Amino acid sequence: MACNLLKGKKGIIFGALNEDSIAWKVAERAVEEGAQIVLTNTPISIRMGTIDQLAEKCNAPVIPADATSVEDLERVIDGAMEHFGGSFDFILHSIGMSPNVRKGRTYDDLDYDFLAKTLDISALSFHKVIQVARKKDALNEWGSIVALSYIAAQRTLYGYNDMADAKALLESIARSFGYIYGREKHVRINTVSQSPTPTTAGKGVLGMEDLLEFAESMSPLGNASANDCADYVLTLFSDFTRKVTMQNLYHDGGFSSMGMSRRAMRTYQKGLRFEDVAENQFPFGKADE
Amino acid sequence: MACNLLKGKKGIIFGALNEDSIAWKVAERAVEEGAQIVLTNTPISIRMGTIDQLAEKCNAPVIPADATSVEDLERVIDGAMEHFGGSFDFILHSIGMSPNVRKGRTYDDLDYDFLAKTLDISALSFHKVIQVARKKDALNEWGSIVALSYIAAQRTLYGYNDMADAKALLESIARSFGYIYGREKHVRINTVSQSPTPTTAGKGVLGMEDLLEFAESMSPLGNASANDCADYVLTLFSDFTRKVTMQNLYHDGGFSSMGMSRRAMRTYQKGLRFEDVAENQFPFGKADE
Amino acid sequence: MACNLLKGKKGIIFGALNEDSIAWKVAERAVEEGAQIVLTNTPISIRMGTIDQLAEKCNAPVIPADATSVEDLERVIDGAMEHFGGSFDFILHSIGMSPNVRKGRTYDDLDYDFLAKTLDISALSFHKVIQVARKKDALNEWGSIVALSYIAAQRTLYGYNDMADAKALLESIARSFGYIYGREKHVRINTVSQSPTPTTAGKGVLGMEDLLEFAESMSPLGNASANDCADYVLTLFSDFTRKVTMQNLYHDGGFSSMGMSRRAMRTYQKGLRFEDVAENQFPFGKADE
Amino acid sequence: MACNLLKGKKGIIFGALNEDSIAWKVAERAVEEGAQIVLTNTPISIRMGTIDQLAEKCNAPVIPADATSVEDLERVIDGAMEHFGGSFDFILHSIGMSPNVRKGRTYDDLDYDFLAKTLDISALSFHKVIQVARKKDALNEWGSIVALSYIAAQRTLYGYNDMADAKALLESIARSFGYIYGREKHVRINTVSQSPTPTTAGKGVLGMEDLLEFAESMSPLGNASANDCADYVLTLFSDFTRKVTMQNLYHDGGFSSMGMSRRAMRTYQKGLRFEDVAENQFPFGKADE
Repeated sequence: MACNLLKGKKGIIFGALNEDSIAWKVAERAVEEGAQIVLTNTPISIRMGTIDQLAEKCNAPVIPADATSVEDLERVIDGAMEHFGGSFDFILHSIGMSPNVRKGRTYDDLDYDFLAKTLDISALSFHKVIQVARKKDALNEWGSIVALSYIAAQRTLYGYNDMADAKALLESIARSFGYIYGREKHVRINTVSQSPTPTTAGKGVLGMEDLLEFAESMSPLGNASANDCADYVLTLFSDFTRKVTMQNLYHDGGFSSMGMSRRAMRTYQKGLRFEDVAENQFPFGKADE
Repeated sequence: MACNLLKGKKGIIFGALNEDSIAWKVAERAVEEGAQIVLTNTPISIRMGTIDQLAEKCNAPVIPADATSVEDLERVIDGAMEHFGGSFDFILHSIGMSPNVRKGRTYDDLDYDFLAKTLDISALSFHKVIQVARKKDALNEWGSIVALSYIAAQRTLYGYNDMADAKALLESIARSFGYIYGREKHVRINTVSQSPTPTTAGKGVLGMEDLLEFAESMSPLGNASANDCADYVLTLFSDFTRKVTMQNLYHDGGFSSMGMSRRAMRTYQKGLRFEDVAENQFPFGKADE
Repeated sequence: MACNLLKGKKGIIFGALNEDSIAWKVAERAVEEGAQIVLTNTPISIRMGTIDQLAEKCNAPVIPADATSVEDLERVIDGAMEHFGGSFDFILHSIGMSPNVRKGRTYDDLDYDFLAKTLDISALSFHKVIQVARKKDALNEWGSIVALSYIAAQRTLYGYNDMADAKALLESIARSFGYIYGREKHVRINTVSQSPTPTTAGKGVLGMEDLLEFAESMSPLGNASANDCADYVLTLFSDFTRKVTMQNLYHDGGFSSMGMSRRAMRTYQKGLRFEDVAENQFPFGKADE
Repeated sequence: MACNLLKGKKGIIFGALNEDSIAWKVAERAVEEGAQIVLTNTPISIRMGTIDQLAEKCNAPVIPADATSVEDLERVIDGAMEHFGGSFDFILHSIGMSPNVRKGRTYDDLDYDFLAKTLDISALSFHKVIQVARKKDALNEWGSIVALSYIAAQRTLYGYNDMADAKALLESIARSFGYIYGREKHVRINTVSQSPTPTTAGKGVLGMEDLLEFAESMSPLGNASANDCADYVLTLFSDFTRKVTMQNLYHDGGFSSMGMSRRAMRTYQKGLRFEDVAENQFPFGKADE
């Protein structure tokens, strides 16, 4: 499908850990479509993941940065501008983490220091990236910024915990800054609300496998994969979507507009018929809480 | 809970068939809360249902009318004004029917004459009721008009067919006319998006029982009953909600804001585990299409 | 920007009247991006407009059809399949008209025969196009259908009248059919909610010029033009957006996510300060009602 | 309108400063409708405002508390339970403040310590109140919790700054906790998205007067006042709305469903006609940025 959609474009990609990452796929595809990129992630993610392979493949520098640190972000933006020889065109923000989820704190027993971290890492980092870029006038006119979100921002999913609130905040930041950056430099800012995706982060979520199956059977087109997502994000970086801004765009095979599909109901009905049997044979433990 | 919430208020209630009807419950509760009412339904519904019992209980006249007929509606409004000795305060529209659903026409094989009827009965009748009332200046300042809707207007549920489109149209009419009637007479117009409800109409829907169960297990407060709905509608007729207009208000135990509940997922998971077994033991027939 | 985005794709475009039409721009750009197309419009629009010039430029046949007629639509689909030598990939629906608006009937004095026509032309025609295409299995797997909508479907704009209801119905049809066509053939169906656009149809709307100015000053990126819209629609026809379906996508420079911009408020404030002066110097006549 | 709507109900009201406060009006009206209440606010607000008058009028204790402090909240909940002799029925959260707004930091130059405070005071305090109440099992079955929000959570208004993000976060918390508290104790949690209101906080906002006027002229029923809001909130505390949860409810005279009203457009048009004149005669200064 390569058609040089991003010919001559340059951008920074936050959050590629390994080849399951959506950010990884975006990086690969952006380069295939003619873009030049700079990669960044936290030092620990760089060590634990395989971003160097991606960097080599994409002929891209990797600049380590903690996206909650304004100082670090200044180094990333400066580094990118140096690498590109000036301002650039796009940014992908694919960052999220909840210490409350990691430590098994339920939503009615949140640790508030953890909550502050969840919000800082998963949402406020987006504001920081944009504010730093704007102060340095790093983005070209009609540039494009995208962050990855999830429908938990609108509808509660058990177990998603304080990440739901972080995503709601993230989407609000896209709108608020989209107005400011749009009126001044025509830079557009959007979030893509993606299907649940079996990335390293995603696979860590409790009950992820069943949620993936449910979403798959509810969505008429099935779940959107990381590869699908990459393609979609590229359209948002391209000049074909210059007037789209301050939007949360569902990229989910139709899930967000479904109330109940025939296929999901069929499985659900079976569950109902076997309610008692299953209770004995498949005891759900604490993990299900 | 009677506290004379509607003391001195007068209104017309469309759509009470029998004691399972939401309109029936609204009528009963409105009278309990101090309102005077006029009842109306189609001649055939009057014959097939038990509205006369309700009329007696509520000390209310029944004026037969086909809500798609402007002439009939004029008679209802005139009759009500005569009965009340002048203008009145509220209208409930609880009307919906799809010949396509009744005749088993699927959404990809709609009969377009039927579709026109679905829209006329279930949505345009709402416009007609309001337009007739306004032309006759039938509603008092700060009056209130409510129609019953369903979340299918926003999210597709298999089998709900062209009624989904009718509900979307109904909700749009509430907004469009809410502006006009609001700026001129401060009359407010809202729709209540109610949980699936086992009324006579509801029970006719294919797979309704399982849908009810799914909605119940998704909604943290459980499904809202017809009685619950009546109470909620009364608040919208009362003077406590004078500045609420052009809204679609979810009255559904939280369903509309849920992505997935632990309880629903548990049943779904059992269905997944017993997928193959169930396929043999519980063959789903054509009815499931 | 030509990058062969639609290389090898084939599709039908409804609603090109003249070079101001969004459908015209989509046709031109689709061909530039490598697509083959078939054009269609009503016989009267063909006579009054300049579609033949477009046909020549695009090397495309024009098949006359009234999109409310199933028979006519069958001829269009058959003709297109014959022309393309088989099934095809995309459809654009850019059709809307309200006899009530044309005849100056206000929303509280609608003619119900006109209303039925508004809905049939502007919304039900979309269902008919899709139903006919599906019955003839005219679209390839992963095909794409787009209709043009407007934010009046969600928020009331004075003077937009029953077209608001038609657009709400149109968007609902996209969801309802998106589920059916998606699960069976992976065909996606979306609506694009476009900025007000000075097309021939748009320019006929009362007070359009001032509305355009208001939208322009509210939208951080300014109004999206017909050309912008064409580019955006192309992404929806391309393989980059295969998992986007059942969505209403705002293409409006950010307008839909704005509550109040500094620029629009500045003009509004001036209006407030000159309220009395203006009343004398710029009497607004009946046309403003 | 007193009809003992809240007879026998007990609750805590956060955020009454003086008689312009919405919380003040809710307190007064709740008592008129038969409720018993406990009041709370920060020590500084207690000193600067006139809450003692309200306390006397409502025969209610005032318990000072900083709503960002879990310890303080524990004292409020304990104190209320002692006062009421056990658990209670409702909580109103009417708290919001942005140091960034106060210090004149624009949205593209936010201080991140201030931002953390904005979020903590205006949104996370809501989570803390609920978590503390739930841990102490302070609310009766079918209790009701309401927080006040604003449409800036969905649509950007220039100058509203990081309060928009705080409100989006607040509304998300209502959903997330509404699920948990609903499934366990049938406690419902909603936000009311209120018209701009000339409270002490509101009047501090830059350009508030003109925004009020704009909202007034856009809303078919006019802006909702603090008194109107109080009445509406009471319905949400009453037993008439038991199945409404996880909702953001617009109480705004119709503003949220308006795209453009005739009246607002008229003023806007005058501003357009006098664009040049006004520029000279009414120079907008830095304050307008």
